[in-house]
Amino acid sequence: MSPAASDSMLPVVTIRARDARRVAAGHPWVFDGALESAPSGLVDGAIVAVEDPSHRLLGIGPYNGKSRIRVRLLARQSVAIDVDFFERRIRSALAVRERHLPGASSYRVVNSESDGLSGLVVDRYEDVLVLQIASLGLEQRKAAIVEALARVCKPRAILERSEGASRRFEGLEPASGLLAGSLESPRALPIRLNGLQFEVDLEAGHKTGLYLDQQANYEAVARFARGARVLDCFSFLGGFGLHAARAGAAHVRMLDQSAEAVAASLRNAAANGLDGRCEAEVANVFDWLKAKSRAEVREREAPWDLIVLDPPSFTRSRSSVPDALRGYKEIHLRALRLLAPGGVLATFCCSHHVDAQAFQSAIQAAAFDARVVLRRVACYSQSPDHPVVPSIPETEYLKGFAFEKVEEGG
Amino acid sequence: MSPAASDSMLPVVTIRARDARRVAAGHPWVFDGALESAPSGLVDGAIVAVEDPSHRLLGIGPYNGKSRIRVRLLARQSVAIDVDFFERRIRSALAVRERHLPGASSYRVVNSESDGLSGLVVDRYEDVLVLQIASLGLEQRKAAIVEALARVCKPRAILERSEGASRRFEGLEPASGLLAGSLESPRALPIRLNGLQFEVDLEAGHKTGLYLDQQANYEAVARFARGARVLDCFSFLGGFGLHAARAGAAHVRMLDQSAEAVAASLRNAAANGLDGRCEAEVANVFDWLKAKSRAEVREREAPWDLIVLDPPSFTRSRSSVPDALRGYKEIHLRALRLLAPGGVLATFCCSHHVDAQAFQSAIQAAAFDARVVLRRVACYSQSPDHPVVPSIPETEYLKGFAFEKVEEGG
Repeated sequence: MSPAASDSMLPVVTIRARDARRVAAGHPWVFDGALESAPSGLVDGAIVAVEDPSHRLLGIGPYNGKSRIRVRLLARQSVAIDVDFFERRIRSALAVRERHLPGASSYRVVNSESDGLSGLVVDRYEDVLVLQIASLGLEQRKAAIVEALARVCKPRAILERSEGASRRFEGLEPASGLLAGSLESPRALPIRLNGLQFEVDLEAGHKTGLYLDQQANYEAVARFARGARVLDCFSFLGGFGLHAARAGAAHVRMLDQSAEAVAASLRNAAANGLDGRCEAEVANVFDWLKAKSRAEVREREAPWDLIVLDPPSFTRSRSSVPDALRGYKEIHLRALRLLAPGGVLATFCCSHHVDAQAFQSAIQAAAFDARVVLRRVACYSQSPDHPVVPSIPETEYLKGFAFEKVEEGG
Repeated sequence: MSPAASDSMLPVVTIRARDARRVAAGHPWVFDGALESAPSGLVDGAIVAVEDPSHRLLGIGPYNGKSRIRVRLLARQSVAIDVDFFERRIRSALAVRERHLPGASSYRVVNSESDGLSGLVVDRYEDVLVLQIASLGLEQRKAAIVEALARVCKPRAILERSEGASRRFEGLEPASGLLAGSLESPRALPIRLNGLQFEVDLEAGHKTGLYLDQQANYEAVARFARGARVLDCFSFLGGFGLHAARAGAAHVRMLDQSAEAVAASLRNAAANGLDGRCEAEVANVFDWLKAKSRAEVREREAPWDLIVLDPPSFTRSRSSVPDALRGYKEIHLRALRLLAPGGVLATFCCSHHVDAQAFQSAIQAAAFDARVVLRRVACYSQSPDHPVVPSIPETEYLKGFAFEKVEEGG
């Protein structure tokens, strides 16, 4: 917000006053509709200065005429966007992880807007980095980013997994492959999470290989597992299930639609010496819960003391939120019927468009239909390597709760 | 919800269908406006059965014609409200605390609606119980409650502190004194909280002596304290300050408007061997922060690495929420100006009427005015001995966040 925009010799994009307030509050996105004026002939990827109508500098960042997000601010002052810039940004992101996840060896190093690097995600799996680029501006600066990462993290290898749908909106094709170093077996890399070993597939696994955003929650939910019969729904590589087994669960059943994930979760159980108490099954969780919640089956099969629901997002857009809420209500209704009195339901929603209040209301509606009273015993958010910056609402997406099923009393 | 209401021989109060849904979902309050019919000549305090228009039993509980809350349901079926009933309820409440606060020796044993005992609060301070009764129905059954508490908890003494304004709405006068056992020095009882010693005044202290609802948060916030200069605002007996000092704070300054509280917090610091790094000051926090945030003072005095804001509620009613939000914004603006870059602000709101989203928005507005970007690093709720039951929204009141002040980067 210094007045020296024009000194920088950058092309100047001016935005409307009402959009300037949001940007000044810390949001790095400048949408097409916010533009009041822009020089003609701007080259996509060029760094521009963004000013409010009073010519105050709001920040600088790459322009992209193909994207609805015309400018993604990278800095608030006029600085060179070079290897040194990326190095400074990555170092301060790393400091946040070292402060809030001390001892972790696998975590998200850079989380895009949360870390002042809109369009860049970098995950660390032990000494291997996996990078995702979602913006044209950073795609053009990939070499500088790779160089900065090499300087700060000194990784054995840097892989790319730039496959997200959002690249299309920036006019980019998917990109993947080895960018630096070497790695013999990216499809079955053993990594450690909270002291447990997981085998991750850095080439073809979900996201960049693992749901790192649940790292803190894996441990937090496990505190309800001692002696419990645990049902881990949407178990993927067994994150919740194996943490529960280690915490003393009597028995863990993991469910996932993917045969590869189920096989990997069983290998992970064995690698941690937990296979005696873990089983895993390929299943559509909705159908499985429905079949098991039929009264005659419920009577035959014991109820569960801890049920974890960690489904993929039920909605990617605001318009389908009502459908998503119906889906959340339905799956909770089925799960609550299988929960023992006094048992715990740990449940997550990873859609940015469904906020914690709406999510809790859907669960509450299910509890009403199931004639169950719930006691909330924990609230969860994304792990601290996926920082929430309140002035950028899009940085918050994961929310969860643990509810105890209140025992009917006389 | 069994159909056998009339078998119980209790007087039957019928409520409207639209209110029945809320009650059936687990809410124990039946407001005056919900009543469709009630027998004439009902005696205040008498146990009645509450039915929906289809004569389904919703529950039973004491009637009070003087209160807007005409009936407070105590059970969903028809059972005798006697010593055995209170014993069962207290035992299940205790089980929740033993599960979620293992090792604690001071905590809330019964939290009114959270534990199916609308109108009763019982706090345990080591082997002493402090009881608060806020309803006529339970006031009339005090002897049975005291007997049940004696059976379950075997306390050295049971004190009463029934002083809340809500008693007036039930047609009750304040009541206090020793109900059972004996206690020599109720005004300076040493108790332990997370391994630290605090001296509590069970006769005249705030609430029943201490803010037990922050027990878990005292420890959680202290993880930001290592090496930090800590400012504990509204410090009362030094809960946040002493936990921070023990966690390795370089220096702690506590501020409270009450001279008695400040003196007690200094005695507590000394009792824990932490007085070398703690000071406390009688101050109006609003004025103190304002004076210190003047630029010339700010330059002279070092900024703070950890600031805790734990004020009393800014509003007791829905109508004054806008004023409260302006107050929250103002106090955060002042605090943010005193926070070092990279420092942490841990802040709490204990008003039921201000939800987490509104509270965060007020802080966000302050951050905008202070030209500060915040990173959210923790979300807090009330300790698990004050359970949140989502079907009873009034059970949720305490919310808090920790924000890191993002360092300006080039």
